[in-house]
Amino acid sequence: MAKILKGTEVNAALGEKIKASVDTLKEQGIVPTLGIIRVGERPDDLSYEKGASKRCEKYGVAVKRYLLPADCTQEQLMHTIEEVNRDSSVHGVLMFRPLPKSLDEEAACGALDPEKDIDGITIGSLAGVFTSRKIGFPPCTAQACMEILDYYGVNCRGKKAVVIGRSLVVGKPAAMMLLDRNATVTVCHSKTVDIPAIAREADILIVAIGRPKAVGGSCFREGQTVIDVGINVGEDGKLCGDANFEDAERIVDAVTPVPGGVGSVTTTVLVQHVVEAAERQTQKH
Amino acid sequence: MAKILKGTEVNAALGEKIKASVDTLKEQGIVPTLGIIRVGERPDDLSYEKGASKRCEKYGVAVKRYLLPADCTQEQLMHTIEEVNRDSSVHGVLMFRPLPKSLDEEAACGALDPEKDIDGITIGSLAGVFTSRKIGFPPCTAQACMEILDYYGVNCRGKKAVVIGRSLVVGKPAAMMLLDRNATVTVCHSKTVDIPAIAREADILIVAIGRPKAVGGSCFREGQTVIDVGINVGEDGKLCGDANFEDAERIVDAVTPVPGGVGSVTTTVLVQHVVEAAERQTQKH
Repeated sequence: MAKILKGTEVNAALGEKIKASVDTLKEQGIVPTLGIIRVGERPDDLSYEKGASKRCEKYGVAVKRYLLPADCTQEQLMHTIEEVNRDSSVHGVLMFRPLPKSLDEEAACGALDPEKDIDGITIGSLAGVFTSRKIGFPPCTAQACMEILDYYGVNCRGKKAVVIGRSLVVGKPAAMMLLDRNATVTVCHSKTVDIPAIAREADILIVAIGRPKAVGGSCFREGQTVIDVGINVGEDGKLCGDANFEDAERIVDAVTPVPGGVGSVTTTVLVQHVVEAAERQTQKH
Repeated sequence: MAKILKGTEVNAALGEKIKASVDTLKEQGIVPTLGIIRVGERPDDLSYEKGASKRCEKYGVAVKRYLLPADCTQEQLMHTIEEVNRDSSVHGVLMFRPLPKSLDEEAACGALDPEKDIDGITIGSLAGVFTSRKIGFPPCTAQACMEILDYYGVNCRGKKAVVIGRSLVVGKPAAMMLLDRNATVTVCHSKTVDIPAIAREADILIVAIGRPKAVGGSCFREGQTVIDVGINVGEDGKLCGDANFEDAERIVDAVTPVPGGVGSVTTTVLVQHVVEAAERQTQKH
């Protein structure tokens, strides 16, 4: 039976560091603050917002909401982004995406102050991930995968890591972060021939394709660590990952659960990034 | 015997396109112009500058040189970069690196106008490569590898591509560009365990490690296409690549020679980028 890599344990460890940083900031009179820009009322966004707000509250991080109707204009959105950029009491910004199709998402991301970009959506943050420099912040989800590996002492050096998925939110940044940790990294995707054969070679397997239980027993072998990024509603109406958890639990060495794995750590990383953004801005100004 | 993927053929095809673009620009009264910023007199830089200038001349692209002594100050360098940024007659800039250690290279790269960055050194260009967006330009060497694959009709889709090397000049950008072409991409490096076993899996093998003939017969198998990015002086005093050419020629399907392979195409890509930068700036202003 595989070891279950629980998000709660990772969160407890991250939480200690966050609390210490928040205390130090508060001694300087600074309340680290997350700005949330939400256009419309998509249930996914509302659910994530609720979780993020609760996690912020837990660690003493304030939340300011900037809400726009689903039919807002590009001008209204850009005006809101400028307002958030200018407001020095807001240290980190979460802007829900995808934006409604009537809006220019690339222009919106481009307008955000890179210093406040805590989720890897600006040019600066993306270049930072690619070059391993401290510019902006990597996407929280990719960072959450690394936090789990680090917390559970999974040494990546010289190991074979396979990332299934090549999105800018998880696949590509996770690949760069694994390279940074000296893994030999392979990126698979929808055009890959024989994913199972490649996945079985992995010592560390990161699954981020967005289809329920798409990665099953044929992709696993003994000795692997599996990080499951997916959050889907399965046929039985229950939450499930992109990996078949029952198969993984039976075959591999260690696997993250869904729910309670990557997703739960992602929310904590978001708070951590807000606090780090506040620290950087305080040191700078 | 492997097919030899000669740079001259690729250059001839690229050259046709470049000439057509240059003609169109000249009809609008624009002479595409490369600005070269060189600090000191390193033999490598002088040799590359000579080749690049000759290639520019061949295609009707002008060259302006901005030369600074090896002991120049950061202020002098930044002033020169600002001058080049402001000069609207200069469309693309090549700044030789590494800069002398007394200078802040990151600050210098950061100061360059991304629109004129034809060799992938600014944040904008690097994010462009990572996200597959048309921001700035990718590094010429990585682009040259792709031009060779494209010219010789090597279809990357679903193929296994292995990149040996993870630099920002070749390895990482080439990996992103191969992903874009729908290859399944593995990046190896100095910490990789058993490079030969991984390299033999590759359908397309890009070698960029900077050591003469470091990749030999144990890394090759029938059916491969090998792109050799290295340019080294071998024990016999002759130029050689990072791959053992004799081994490759005997075993694989196709291989680039050194000299006359990637390096020669890189210079043409540089000219191509200057011309494309001129086109973009003309459309914009």
